[in-house]
Amino acid sequence: MHKENISTAVIRRLPRYYRHLVDLEKAGTERISSSMLGKNMGLTASQIRQDLSCFGGFGQQGYGYNVTRLREAIAEILGMNRNHTAVIVGVGNIGRALVENFPFAQNGFRLLAAFDVEPAVVGTTLGDVIVQHADNLEAYLQENTVDVAGIAVTASAARDVALRLYHSGIRGIWNFTNVEMPEQQMPGVMVENIHFADSLLTLSYKITDVAEEQV
Amino acid sequence: MHKENISTAVIRRLPRYYRHLVDLEKAGTERISSSMLGKNMGLTASQIRQDLSCFGGFGQQGYGYNVTRLREAIAEILGMNRNHTAVIVGVGNIGRALVENFPFAQNGFRLLAAFDVEPAVVGTTLGDVIVQHADNLEAYLQENTVDVAGIAVTASAARDVALRLYHSGIRGIWNFTNVEMPEQQMPGVMVENIHFADSLLTLSYKITDVAEEQV
Repeated sequence: MHKENISTAVIRRLPRYYRHLVDLEKAGTERISSSMLGKNMGLTASQIRQDLSCFGGFGQQGYGYNVTRLREAIAEILGMNRNHTAVIVGVGNIGRALVENFPFAQNGFRLLAAFDVEPAVVGTTLGDVIVQHADNLEAYLQENTVDVAGIAVTASAARDVALRLYHSGIRGIWNFTNVEMPEQQMPGVMVENIHFADSLLTLSYKITDVAEEQV
Repeated sequence: MHKENISTAVIRRLPRYYRHLVDLEKAGTERISSSMLGKNMGLTASQIRQDLSCFGGFGQQGYGYNVTRLREAIAEILGMNRNHTAVIVGVGNIGRALVENFPFAQNGFRLLAAFDVEPAVVGTTLGDVIVQHADNLEAYLQENTVDVAGIAVTASAARDVALRLYHSGIRGIWNFTNVEMPEQQMPGVMVENIHFADSLLTLSYKITDVAEEQV
């Protein structure tokens, strides 16, 4: 299986396949046909077969996919077995939700540390980590190998934090602020944005569309 | 401008255009060329022109786009002037972040209410709303016109809550749980998912890819 043959659109669907396959495994399902997988996921059997064509060895006509082997292959493609590490910068409501509730381990990550500037939270324990002062960010990143930093600081601090992370060697940024990252100043950095507003506005468009069609 | 001519991919980029145009307006910029807009957004001028071709009247050769008129046109397409209303179900860390910090008004929405089942939070005030018991959901939705419900409950409750919302007439679901919504049982409902894990796994893929290329 060659990564370069997998399109970005397929990559974005792989986590969803992965979740379905985990559920199937938990339910004791050993194999599944593309049509059944498609029915579960709201896709056509041919979309499924096309998406998973790079995993050809696991899908056989009349047999379907071996659930465990397909899940493992997807996990490998997604880099879930690379012992990736993460830190969270900013532990307001969102950062706190990530530190306390997000299943890093299930996604192949180890959460190492969290940072903030508020005296009220620095030094407190959240989940399994002690919140450190953000002044320690550079020193911490020099001493520890960190792959991904989640940014959940206030909008005004977001770009500065991103550049500090970049200059400390971070190559993966998981951005929870509504601010665009200064990607041009951070060559080589991979950014994933969780823009709540973009998602709500897409929903706004969809429900407006429906309303108009009904007129 | 005809909605049916706008592809889903373009719609998903419109909120980002909107944010850039708001920033430009704040900075006093009255017009902008497609090449400058592209430079700001990390897109080519021709991508910009193609994306915004349905707003042709606002982009003129040698003049560029009128920032305010383009922003207004995008807002209209996105349904930002429809007085949409929203409620949030579940006020753990994520729900609390939405209720307390998310700029609903800036996105054309009015947040009407929040719901939870925890005795410790029911009756408390978060942001501008009083948290109501989730048992009141159906009664509330019968008495109030609500377009979108954000679901930020625990995973085990997510699908039940979705179906309750559906049967109470909700047509837009903004899903913050890592659970797939039962869309087949909710015909006509529009769903937008904020799947944190999918985003982290996409990032995981991207940084793994980089690491492999460097070998």
